[in-house]
Amino acid sequence: MLFDLDGTLLDSVYQHVLAWREVLETFGIPLSIWRIHRRIGMSGGLFLRALVRETGRALTAADADRLRDLHAGAYSRRLGEVKPLPGAQQLLDMLTAQGVPWAIATSGSDATARRSLALLRVDPHVPVITRDQVAYAKPNPDLFLAAAEALGKPIADSFVVGDSVWDQLAAQRAHALGVGVLSGGYGREELESAGAYRVYDDPQDLLNHIDELGIRTHS
Amino acid sequence: MLFDLDGTLLDSVYQHVLAWREVLETFGIPLSIWRIHRRIGMSGGLFLRALVRETGRALTAADADRLRDLHAGAYSRRLGEVKPLPGAQQLLDMLTAQGVPWAIATSGSDATARRSLALLRVDPHVPVITRDQVAYAKPNPDLFLAAAEALGKPIADSFVVGDSVWDQLAAQRAHALGVGVLSGGYGREELESAGAYRVYDDPQDLLNHIDELGIRTHS
Repeated sequence: MLFDLDGTLLDSVYQHVLAWREVLETFGIPLSIWRIHRRIGMSGGLFLRALVRETGRALTAADADRLRDLHAGAYSRRLGEVKPLPGAQQLLDMLTAQGVPWAIATSGSDATARRSLALLRVDPHVPVITRDQVAYAKPNPDLFLAAAEALGKPIADSFVVGDSVWDQLAAQRAHALGVGVLSGGYGREELESAGAYRVYDDPQDLLNHIDELGIRTHS
Repeated sequence: MLFDLDGTLLDSVYQHVLAWREVLETFGIPLSIWRIHRRIGMSGGLFLRALVRETGRALTAADADRLRDLHAGAYSRRLGEVKPLPGAQQLLDMLTAQGVPWAIATSGSDATARRSLALLRVDPHVPVITRDQVAYAKPNPDLFLAAAEALGKPIADSFVVGDSVWDQLAAQRAHALGVGVLSGGYGREELESAGAYRVYDDPQDLLNHIDELGIRTHS
């Protein structure tokens, strides 16, 4: 099982949204909050390209780097409000106990992911793939492909668990089965349209229905 | 045309979400942020009842009043970040100029609505119906029925414009036609499933496609 991080294991999407909003405002780029929300989880580079196109505001490569840095800072300041989603730790612990291989693959940077991951108990041997380790983040398939490779498992036998349409699209491109969670604030139908094989409320709901994925637990 | 306020004319949903989250935390009620988001726009009383049921935490009537007061305060402190949605003022001005009757109907209180409405130019003769003026807020139809009555127009000839499923459900119960906007952060399909006749991105997009509602503008 290959997990996205923000909105999937951590209740952190709204903090990312408001961090981007604060940073874009300081750059004089007014963008409605829902439009930012719908882009969380995609590659930061693609996010900024879409911004340029939609707002008509030109951004240099230096501007884009600065925006990404400012966002990392603005998100860090909100990290105190971030918590694991209900059932996240229990789901990961169950998979570990049952010998089901799992990894984390996030469009975030190494630095941000490391700070976020401190909120969960994750054994150091668990692969954590960030955008610093691949050429392209989501919706490109690279993050999930690298995560499956790090586990030594075929991607086509993997589940990708994510809250955003970018996870589901990346799962399709990687030839994995996408499983959606509503805990990032997308609607069920958006995730289904993007290819989710099944959609759960949050990690707790996924854990309660783990049989539906054909994962057999042994006590 | 009968307009919801938060998420429909104002970019204020995320501020309401975080205000509720802050207040619930101080009461020791941990609730994932997306679950709060999906309840914004419904009656505060129904919101708190759902909370009691889902979290198993008992709330007295005094607790509920206190929570509502605290939320009003927490939202007010975030009001400085709230802006009109793109096209909101232009849409309202166009309707006024064309002689199309319109009103505002919000599940919020008089006090909060008044503060929020200061962000828009709204002529004092425009009816503004709040939860203080009706027995039940959304998804009950009362707010929209009262708004149509204040305009002296039949509800069955009215459009209800709103960002949440609660607006769309209230529109159905009122026998009005619901028009959705995505600017509150719901997905298009959620609004369509709740009965939206048509869904636009935001007030600007609705204004650009006003012909689709059969509203004829004359220059």
